[in-house]
Amino acid sequence: MYELYYWPTIQGRGEFVRLALEQADAEYVDMARKKDGLAKMQALLEGKNGLTPPFAPPFLRDGSVVIGQTAAILFYLGERLNLAPRNNIQRLWTHQIQLTISDLITEVHDTHHPLSVDLYFEEQRSAARRRAKTFREERLPKFLNWFETILDRNESDRHCLVGRSVTYADLSLFQVVEGLGYAFPKAMRRTGRNYPRVATAHGAVGQLPRLRSYLDSDRRFPFNEDDIFRHYGELDA
Amino acid sequence: MYELYYWPTIQGRGEFVRLALEQADAEYVDMARKKDGLAKMQALLEGKNGLTPPFAPPFLRDGSVVIGQTAAILFYLGERLNLAPRNNIQRLWTHQIQLTISDLITEVHDTHHPLSVDLYFEEQRSAARRRAKTFREERLPKFLNWFETILDRNESDRHCLVGRSVTYADLSLFQVVEGLGYAFPKAMRRTGRNYPRVATAHGAVGQLPRLRSYLDSDRRFPFNEDDIFRHYGELDA
Repeated sequence: MYELYYWPTIQGRGEFVRLALEQADAEYVDMARKKDGLAKMQALLEGKNGLTPPFAPPFLRDGSVVIGQTAAILFYLGERLNLAPRNNIQRLWTHQIQLTISDLITEVHDTHHPLSVDLYFEEQRSAARRRAKTFREERLPKFLNWFETILDRNESDRHCLVGRSVTYADLSLFQVVEGLGYAFPKAMRRTGRNYPRVATAHGAVGQLPRLRSYLDSDRRFPFNEDDIFRHYGELDA
Repeated sequence: MYELYYWPTIQGRGEFVRLALEQADAEYVDMARKKDGLAKMQALLEGKNGLTPPFAPPFLRDGSVVIGQTAAILFYLGERLNLAPRNNIQRLWTHQIQLTISDLITEVHDTHHPLSVDLYFEEQRSAARRRAKTFREERLPKFLNWFETILDRNESDRHCLVGRSVTYADLSLFQVVEGLGYAFPKAMRRTGRNYPRVATAHGAVGQLPRLRSYLDSDRRFPFNEDDIFRHYGELDA
């Protein structure tokens, strides 16, 4: 039984872990959504129980093992949930893709919070507009182009990023494309059509039955403006 | 023979890999500092040779294996250079620390480039001052406090982050403290004294003979204002 610790009302970075757990039909508890869950999360963050303290949510507890950092959690789970290649080099390649997705997510977050997480979006709008412009025009195409290239180069199955089977990186790319479509619908309509393999991969993952059943359940929260992917029209010019 | 690919005139993220290679006395070539090196780097970034294309430098080539993402490179090298624990869980913990250091480095970079990497610092000074304030007052103490806690909790050797031996994470923490001392000397004098174990660990790594000999060589570039750690007095109020 895995314990996932993350903020209880948003998808956030926790969602990348949830998608893996759900697609693998793993037994897990979303701890912070339970009674006293936030207090337990806080205690683990403070390392009060002798376990290694993560820097921030999300983190996973598996018995006496506590793992923070989304990509590290997925590296750990990938092997156990059969969502990563068996070959070590391929597994590290999958992880490398996930780390690049993590970088993209940080950049998405910074489009609406370029100056400080301690300020509201409304207090940093002008800076956010500038940052979002560079994101839409330079960074977003660079990231999408990289995913397109990788999909194109994977000769074993061009719907997957690595090898022939779905990995956690495919699930994460799906989530990124969903989130980008929510936050930047105009930019994604304009830019996204240049990346047909990304679109196909996104569509294929969205039809995986177990994942679909999660996405249609009430365990899946809707995107919202307290989350990483936020829709502010002025940032999607 | 490892090939390291990174921009040839700065320490940057490549330095975290260099410190590991140097401390392990590994045979490696800093490719982009060689003739035609930048062209070779570009060809690998474009994946022209059938190898997995990294998203950005630094990346490492070891025969037919190409690995991008600083933390992934160090994960790969740690095992081979005896700079990581043998135990898988401890190795993942070391990696988790490194990923958190990567996050810190991104935040340091964004203190001088909060709006766009396409603008000069001088074009985003006002935003940089605001971002640096939150970094100095909120983020820097949070990161340093986490390192202090981990060092304190490691009962096997309180000069190391994990276990009894130097890992690549210790070398990276050394580099971070060096860089922060260069970029934010005032903030580090004020804040740094609250983290005595971080200071001790930094001092211990700086005296490792092989590392010291690298740091004193002309292979080690000085910090400068084209790099990640930049000293701008106005950001260190």
